[in-house]
Amino acid sequence: MPHTDALLRLRQHYQSMPPVRTMDLSIAGYDGHRLVLHAPLATHLNDKGCAFGGSLASMMTLAAWGLVSLNVEAAGIDADIYVADSRIRYLLPLYEDLRATAELDAESDWGTFIGTLRQRGRARTGVRVSVPTADGRVATDFTGRYVAIVRPAPAAGAADR
Amino acid sequence: MPHTDALLRLRQHYQSMPPVRTMDLSIAGYDGHRLVLHAPLATHLNDKGCAFGGSLASMMTLAAWGLVSLNVEAAGIDADIYVADSRIRYLLPLYEDLRATAELDAESDWGTFIGTLRQRGRARTGVRVSVPTADGRVATDFTGRYVAIVRPAPAAGAADR
Repeated sequence: MPHTDALLRLRQHYQSMPPVRTMDLSIAGYDGHRLVLHAPLATHLNDKGCAFGGSLASMMTLAAWGLVSLNVEAAGIDADIYVADSRIRYLLPLYEDLRATAELDAESDWGTFIGTLRQRGRARTGVRVSVPTADGRVATDFTGRYVAIVRPAPAAGAADR
Repeated sequence: MPHTDALLRLRQHYQSMPPVRTMDLSIAGYDGHRLVLHAPLATHLNDKGCAFGGSLASMMTLAAWGLVSLNVEAAGIDADIYVADSRIRYLLPLYEDLRATAELDAESDWGTFIGTLRQRGRARTGVRVSVPTADGRVATDFTGRYVAIVRPAPAAGAADR
């Protein structure tokens, strides 16, 4: 897979969060535009034997966050990424592993987002995430807005003086 | 606390779901109208030392689901409850324990919902959930729609014949 180092860092980042460690999450693909996360159904079962809505919400939030993080990092910018809002539709029950694919929404593009972030230190973008059923229909879809805020440069330490 | 038996069943129900067992969730209050869930911050930290958005999404989805379940059960109806959609706004970072309060939204009422469910075997209601900061501002709010579908009565078994 290309982007190997960035994906290793993203995986470490996910695993550093206690609630994410319990999710059995893996990065199933990334081509620079789409990030795919996978998690086994067994870890995310609800009372009806299908995927728990809360797990889907959590995983889609993470997939979109990861996509924005990878693109900010690829631009060489050190920024914190926050989810601002999200909208989720649960269309069909999911009886198989969770596979969430995140990409920019139709109104957003990376050039504008990264340009604004460089210029203003802050930018917002829309991300959509989709989880399919085994036969290719949409089980759950997500649209969310994410904000990136450039981290202040570390103060010059004694060693630099 | 009143409603003790129903809350014990709800707790068992939550704990029966593998992804919920890892959340350290407890039922902090219920008065027939508002259900309050609690979870410790330590279990739900993100990379920035505050509550992870995915955990908030998951917990709010569960709180709303629990509220609808309790009311359906109190009406003596055996039904499955599904989340249909949700909208979440992340307004402020949360640096303390997660406390989610679920109640009906302004457009819904239990009488109409339960009446429709009895009559048609299926009904939909809106629920709102709010998570406050320590100083009483809203950290995160959620609005979601939930569908209840009456379970088919079990077929008469050999013992009944």
